Amino acid sequence: MVIQLKKDITEQNKNLIIKKLENSKYSCSQVKTQKDNYLVAIGKNEIDIRRIGSMNGVNDIHRVDDNYKLVSRKWKTEYSKINLGDGIKIGNDDFAIMAGPCSIENEEQIIDTVNHLKKNNIKIMRGGVFKPRSSPYSFRGLGIEGLKLFSKHCKNAGIKIITEVMQVSQIEDMIEYVDVFQVGARNSQNFNLLDELGKTNIPVMLKRGLAGTIDELLFSAEYIFSAGNEQIILCERGIRSYEKAYRNTLDVNAIPLLKEKTHLPVVVDPSHAIGIRQFVKPLALASIMAGADGIIFETHKQPEVAFSDGQQTLNYTEAEKLYDNMKKTYKFRKTLDLMP
Amino acid sequence: MVIQLKKDITEQNKNLIIKKLENSKYSCSQVKTQKDNYLVAIGKNEIDIRRIGSMNGVNDIHRVDDNYKLVSRKWKTEYSKINLGDGIKIGNDDFAIMAGPCSIENEEQIIDTVNHLKKNNIKIMRGGVFKPRSSPYSFRGLGIEGLKLFSKHCKNAGIKIITEVMQVSQIEDMIEYVDVFQVGARNSQNFNLLDELGKTNIPVMLKRGLAGTIDELLFSAEYIFSAGNEQIILCERGIRSYEKAYRNTLDVNAIPLLKEKTHLPVVVDPSHAIGIRQFVKPLALASIMAGADGIIFETHKQPEVAFSDGQQTLNYTEAEKLYDNMKKTYKFRKTLDLMP
Amino acid sequence: MVIQLKKDITEQNKNLIIKKLENSKYSCSQVKTQKDNYLVAIGKNEIDIRRIGSMNGVNDIHRVDDNYKLVSRKWKTEYSKINLGDGIKIGNDDFAIMAGPCSIENEEQIIDTVNHLKKNNIKIMRGGVFKPRSSPYSFRGLGIEGLKLFSKHCKNAGIKIITEVMQVSQIEDMIEYVDVFQVGARNSQNFNLLDELGKTNIPVMLKRGLAGTIDELLFSAEYIFSAGNEQIILCERGIRSYEKAYRNTLDVNAIPLLKEKTHLPVVVDPSHAIGIRQFVKPLALASIMAGADGIIFETHKQPEVAFSDGQQTLNYTEAEKLYDNMKKTYKFRKTLDLMP
Amino acid sequence: MVIQLKKDITEQNKNLIIKKLENSKYSCSQVKTQKDNYLVAIGKNEIDIRRIGSMNGVNDIHRVDDNYKLVSRKWKTEYSKINLGDGIKIGNDDFAIMAGPCSIENEEQIIDTVNHLKKNNIKIMRGGVFKPRSSPYSFRGLGIEGLKLFSKHCKNAGIKIITEVMQVSQIEDMIEYVDVFQVGARNSQNFNLLDELGKTNIPVMLKRGLAGTIDELLFSAEYIFSAGNEQIILCERGIRSYEKAYRNTLDVNAIPLLKEKTHLPVVVDPSHAIGIRQFVKPLALASIMAGADGIIFETHKQPEVAFSDGQQTLNYTEAEKLYDNMKKTYKFRKTLDLMP
Repeated sequence: MVIQLKKDITEQNKNLIIKKLENSKYSCSQVKTQKDNYLVAIGKNEIDIRRIGSMNGVNDIHRVDDNYKLVSRKWKTEYSKINLGDGIKIGNDDFAIMAGPCSIENEEQIIDTVNHLKKNNIKIMRGGVFKPRSSPYSFRGLGIEGLKLFSKHCKNAGIKIITEVMQVSQIEDMIEYVDVFQVGARNSQNFNLLDELGKTNIPVMLKRGLAGTIDELLFSAEYIFSAGNEQIILCERGIRSYEKAYRNTLDVNAIPLLKEKTHLPVVVDPSHAIGIRQFVKPLALASIMAGADGIIFETHKQPEVAFSDGQQTLNYTEAEKLYDNMKKTYKFRKTLDLMP
Repeated sequence: MVIQLKKDITEQNKNLIIKKLENSKYSCSQVKTQKDNYLVAIGKNEIDIRRIGSMNGVNDIHRVDDNYKLVSRKWKTEYSKINLGDGIKIGNDDFAIMAGPCSIENEEQIIDTVNHLKKNNIKIMRGGVFKPRSSPYSFRGLGIEGLKLFSKHCKNAGIKIITEVMQVSQIEDMIEYVDVFQVGARNSQNFNLLDELGKTNIPVMLKRGLAGTIDELLFSAEYIFSAGNEQIILCERGIRSYEKAYRNTLDVNAIPLLKEKTHLPVVVDPSHAIGIRQFVKPLALASIMAGADGIIFETHKQPEVAFSDGQQTLNYTEAEKLYDNMKKTYKFRKTLDLMP
Repeated sequence: MVIQLKKDITEQNKNLIIKKLENSKYSCSQVKTQKDNYLVAIGKNEIDIRRIGSMNGVNDIHRVDDNYKLVSRKWKTEYSKINLGDGIKIGNDDFAIMAGPCSIENEEQIIDTVNHLKKNNIKIMRGGVFKPRSSPYSFRGLGIEGLKLFSKHCKNAGIKIITEVMQVSQIEDMIEYVDVFQVGARNSQNFNLLDELGKTNIPVMLKRGLAGTIDELLFSAEYIFSAGNEQIILCERGIRSYEKAYRNTLDVNAIPLLKEKTHLPVVVDPSHAIGIRQFVKPLALASIMAGADGIIFETHKQPEVAFSDGQQTLNYTEAEKLYDNMKKTYKFRKTLDLMP
Repeated sequence: MVIQLKKDITEQNKNLIIKKLENSKYSCSQVKTQKDNYLVAIGKNEIDIRRIGSMNGVNDIHRVDDNYKLVSRKWKTEYSKINLGDGIKIGNDDFAIMAGPCSIENEEQIIDTVNHLKKNNIKIMRGGVFKPRSSPYSFRGLGIEGLKLFSKHCKNAGIKIITEVMQVSQIEDMIEYVDVFQVGARNSQNFNLLDELGKTNIPVMLKRGLAGTIDELLFSAEYIFSAGNEQIILCERGIRSYEKAYRNTLDVNAIPLLKEKTHLPVVVDPSHAIGIRQFVKPLALASIMAGADGIIFETHKQPEVAFSDGQQTLNYTEAEKLYDNMKKTYKFRKTLDLMP
């Protein structure tokens, strides 16, 4: 059960509600986000919700029979929109393109990429400064100094930054320079990190785990929301399957299913999904037709000399064709109605 | 190595070629299809192909470094088109829609469906008369008598039939009534069945195995081709993954990969892939944007009383919206260039 | 519901039972095997089974709430034993070792292997004469002539033969020479083949599909049983997983689960499971400790020149150590009680 | 390349070695552990290792062609033994049993379990105080206060503690009370956590990821080792597969493969692997026969009222039978030679 409380509800009235719920064997969690004030009540023995709905301080009340609650569309049927400021938005009829290199490598590369994005009117740049790498001997990113450079040039150009945060202690250092925190696939169930990101007011893009289920992804989003941060973007980035012909297997099925189950925007990363440059375009366009609210992909001036992931990275010419095709496809999709 | 022979090559000249290849440690297979005459030569120690290319009776010669040969685009870069007659074609700029019930249930249902398809100008009807079922106690289809009825009404209406063949002994009985033989996922590596279908001149739609790899699918197609039948359509129908939220996981990645690797047309079955009615449409449209040459899906006048697969079957109203959307999407896709 | 009928039940009495069941919305299948006479009744609305149990001609009656019926331990709690004759048995305290080459290659190899097995007192020889191969250009086995040679030497030595049957039309040719028909992983849901094998009185070893579920395996066994053949052995041979370090992933979990769910014997094939020679032994011994009723593995005089699967095949010295270790391990296991 | 340096090597001599390696395009990492002093050199262009081996300060030098280095058996063929003190050891002929509840629930439960373990001469107790849970609304453990109680009673009884650490900031608080840090499956690639655990001198048991590969597991172990901690235990705990009949799929194949590739001990967790109480025993015994150096499993006085994982938890009577059977099986295994 999700209970939306009035912002000015008194402590006394809130306690009355909680007491009534606990008497009916519900356990209650109080959630205060940037936007709103909730009670999440979990219990087996459903009571007549009108008895709660009519209490003082209650704005609205909804049964939610999913296991996750606040991220469910069962109580919030309208899709959420994430606002990055300066008119840049994601979700609910705002389509987002995020592009840039796998890793931030040096200042020159940042400037190059920023110029490329400005020229193409792309408003969000991706680029890793903390890189999760299977091997401890691989390049692990430029760190916070790289992020400061990244931020300086993007701010000047009016471009927003999405970059990965790997652990709790980085949040404080990064928060000044980041517009969207990315949680990588390997941290998709790093619950402490999710809790702490839930205490910030910076949007979070949460990637599905390497072999994460839809339910696990939504539960992880519930961690962030229930800790206080409603600004969550989900990202499908390919799952692990038996097929060896691709790096991962883009799970296009997840897109319409997530759009059915949650009000959160869904972004797709075709670069990490298939891992082969020449197939990024058809997968990006397919994802849009399946209902994606945005695409994040890798581009680099010279993919062949990129520090990481070169084999799945588009050069600028390829990226420009993709921007154009994605915009056309999104516009076309809006002329149809995807649901039956 | 694929060697295209002249149709009027003499036995003597052919034997000279084979002998030369065998001297260079190649093993040779002679393939005679409806269309052409080939030698497939397999060996480790590649010789100068011009020495073979200049021999009498050779039309053309191509190195093919894939493990499969005749189905590879390494020797035939132009996409194949499958011709069902009466102007109905699949592949290479002919988009195919195949619709109908999971199982043929009775004559009334056939007539209903035929009328529905005619009204919507859909030219290929699907419907099973031999049904592979996990349990021996489930409905296994109407058999050959059902197929005769199916054929009678389709022929009258100018509609082509695609239906599943489960074993070698059915081929002879079915051949008069079938326009496309479907090989189901469970028979994707039933090599004897593939061999025998290769001896017919009826097009074959080959479904990917339940957990079949791209390579296995192409090898299975190679069985059919090398036995003499070039008219092969591949079908992606969802793979088995760890995710329990769907029946199977549509592998959209397979579509552009197959279009890169083989000249054969690629059809997608979103109904069996995701197994949930309301998501068939977005997956169908996504598949088209990924490069599919056709869509096969399940429709029924009353899905809720269908003998099988009702939960993934569209009713006629839903199907009509999907026909319209698919045609628009295919037309839209042709305005773009999918490859980078 | 499984109803064991008396052997001398009259048609009239049988029809009375069926009628009573059909009146209660059950659908009935009559099953007559080598051993017994059954009715399998499937329905949602369970009736009081005593009302059926007391009818004339009924030997015994059991509710079976599994989806498969005749192969379930819900009606037959005692484990089945498969008798190959000459005192050679599998299951229910008879542990079976089956060894031999992947493919039968020539008469000399047969004689060699037979001598090796005789010396080690191994009573069942494996060896393929019809080989399912991904590529149509690979060696497909010696066929029926190879089987005749295989049979000749085994009969003389008192050794039983297990070999793969790939299609219905081979059954008749093979039946004279085979002691156990093997159904390969790719044919695990070739329902027509299962039906036909169910009409023979030769034991069948059914391999789990490449990505087959436990339920699918048991349903496939139900096909054979319900067609009349109770002599079924199940074989775990590795499943397809995301892990690339092995050929397949031996699913040791399947062993105790199958021993819980079905009365049929369970044999394990570690050679095809892991696909790496040096790990065949620990996996064989682990499988025995998990409850396996037998082990089938590949051995060859010179694995490095075997026609197929050499990398997973033991030489005779290795095989001899394995026979010894397996026998000791089985003996040791019998001193424990595997269930909690 | 792994270079073992003398403990008293001068900075000057070390720099000479590094310089020589860098001149040959190697990149070098200095690793100083509790035990030893290493250089890990990574490069494509292998030089004659004798030129390095003869330099001052070098103890030994080994080519390691695996991608991971320090955890590989290519340089250290003898198996490692982890010493927990008081004669309690894991690996290299010391078999370890770790048992206890999923979650530490209260003091009474700790005392009960400790008494049970003492009675059975089991020396290592498991129990979670920080619990990773899919849902933010589930019980997340008693935290550090629970750990203090846990520690108090175990110390008195001479029992060692293994418990999960979920994030970097917990290490400092926990370190006084923990004998083995457990890294859970969801944190298997939490590289920051691995780095920090590498700076402690407490043994670490690293679980394989939910769908982690063997290579990823070894790379994660390499993080810990290369950060300075050699005391690493690997844990196979079931992988995610398509099969829905079990919670996870115990990958018994991983055991002999890991014993071949790494010198680190390998422990198996059958409880989380199959997730069904009655199959824990056969899987534990099978794992021992496959080469496991230890078993960790869940036991609880009353599994049916456990706070978490009750369905896979043994009661004390079942646990006692398992201790006995495991000890016998390990003893039996030592009479055989598992490798071929």
